[in-house]
Amino acid sequence: MADKTFVFGHTNPDTDSIASAITMANLQTEMGNYSESFRLGDINKETKYALDTFRVEEPEMLANVDQTSNVIMIDNNEFSQSVSGIENAHIQMVVDHHRLNLHTAEPVYCIAEPVGCTATILYKLYKQDDVEITPKIAGMMLSAILSDTLMFKSPTCTQQDRITAERLAKIAGIDLYDYGYKLLEAGTDISGYTAEEVINIDSKDFQHQDLKITISQINSSNLEDVFKRKAELERAIEDKIARENIDLFVFVVTDILEANSQVIVLGNRTDIFERAFNVKLIGNTTILKGVVSRKKQILPAILEGLNKKIQL
Amino acid sequence: MADKTFVFGHTNPDTDSIASAITMANLQTEMGNYSESFRLGDINKETKYALDTFRVEEPEMLANVDQTSNVIMIDNNEFSQSVSGIENAHIQMVVDHHRLNLHTAEPVYCIAEPVGCTATILYKLYKQDDVEITPKIAGMMLSAILSDTLMFKSPTCTQQDRITAERLAKIAGIDLYDYGYKLLEAGTDISGYTAEEVINIDSKDFQHQDLKITISQINSSNLEDVFKRKAELERAIEDKIARENIDLFVFVVTDILEANSQVIVLGNRTDIFERAFNVKLIGNTTILKGVVSRKKQILPAILEGLNKKIQL
Repeated sequence: MADKTFVFGHTNPDTDSIASAITMANLQTEMGNYSESFRLGDINKETKYALDTFRVEEPEMLANVDQTSNVIMIDNNEFSQSVSGIENAHIQMVVDHHRLNLHTAEPVYCIAEPVGCTATILYKLYKQDDVEITPKIAGMMLSAILSDTLMFKSPTCTQQDRITAERLAKIAGIDLYDYGYKLLEAGTDISGYTAEEVINIDSKDFQHQDLKITISQINSSNLEDVFKRKAELERAIEDKIARENIDLFVFVVTDILEANSQVIVLGNRTDIFERAFNVKLIGNTTILKGVVSRKKQILPAILEGLNKKIQL
Repeated sequence: MADKTFVFGHTNPDTDSIASAITMANLQTEMGNYSESFRLGDINKETKYALDTFRVEEPEMLANVDQTSNVIMIDNNEFSQSVSGIENAHIQMVVDHHRLNLHTAEPVYCIAEPVGCTATILYKLYKQDDVEITPKIAGMMLSAILSDTLMFKSPTCTQQDRITAERLAKIAGIDLYDYGYKLLEAGTDISGYTAEEVINIDSKDFQHQDLKITISQINSSNLEDVFKRKAELERAIEDKIARENIDLFVFVVTDILEANSQVIVLGNRTDIFERAFNVKLIGNTTILKGVVSRKKQILPAILEGLNKKIQL
């Protein structure tokens, strides 16, 4: 395993985790450190659209690494969201834009910045190292930024993400907004999925003291289309709640055109959600104006709601 | 506390922690983010020699920070080696060259590189940001590199540290080797210190599961001179072990001319040290040939020794 460097993002890979792995493997190889990109899970439809558009091959699946592996972690620095065996591997480098939760035995090369997308950081590394960004690579980096920032509408988006995306669109030779809508739209296609699959496309669990909270999110360009399947989705959510003893399940459907979200909230602790957003659920649902980010808006509101309760 | 950014290194500051705090505060201020450098402990004689040579003022002592403080951590990323209250402060940035052991609630700006000295990384930030390096700042950065790399003899030293030091010497207008010997020599003078002070000049604590390990290091140009005080040093170490419930205390005296170290090892877990270096301590001491770096040689060997034990 020691003849190449393994580059990968997180499990349940999104477009940034795939595109930035490809981008980083290319940069390293160009700089003389032969590297290959890998995925830690199935490619979603949005990412597939990006790969198809720019005719880039899907990275191979990586099941595990070991103590002989040289690895580069991108778009993630938490072992719990990484590949099996990561704690034994030799970490050459980390490039990320999430909170830091990393413990290493030796000094490593780490660049973390609070920007909207890993690809925005990688763009600067290409410039520093004076490595050419080909149209294919530019297309993948651009896709990552458009995806992570929800076309600049997410509160995680910085001016740097926007400027970088504009430059990359020129290199890729495509219209940023036209492509962006198509990319995000591709990610909204749930037609081939069962209700159970839909609620698991991008689902994250959070444990807070005795409470188990699950927040699942999908993007949509037409909320009505998704909510036609409301009864079916609710059954799938109720099944999952019963099976996994979840106290609060928040299913978030984010309108990528309007930058709002409509939610389905179930479980025996929906009061937490109502208090967090100061809303009354009607038929298990409500619309959250301007809310699009699980990381920066939904989770912090719920955690704050919990603390309020504790202080009472 | 919110009107300025606090820049500081680790407790028991060495020359890099002081020089890089000064250097970073200057860079940030030049870039429009008003910042001040602080020290988290007394200045050692080596650092004082550098400050006096380049006529730079000693940073003020910082006792604690709170949730209103904006801080930049340099030359350290471990809360256990930082200022009181750090866990509540807003961390703007981390620039370091040690192992990573950082947990943050939100994304932060972090640059860590496995180079010999923090100042080597800061030099690149000055270049990136196109901020002038004055002779005073160059002198401080150069001092940090000479100190951390033991004039390029430490295994932590990279080609980058060496080239950066040569460039800085030109800006500072001094002879690198002549100044380097005087700087390191100034740091070896323990004549005015009590034994207790000697063992605390550059002491770092490491917590590993239930174990508390302390590694203290001084430089010397004459090991015999230091070991004349062995009995007195051992008493001071035993006192500290009893007071602070330390399991393993390693006092390292590094010969800056020969690039070897002689150690005094005490505590109820000296077996860890013996296993780590495959040596038998005689009279609590041994000589480690070619070992000069706590970060790259002593700590990793001890951690590996611990893992060996755990696997048994």
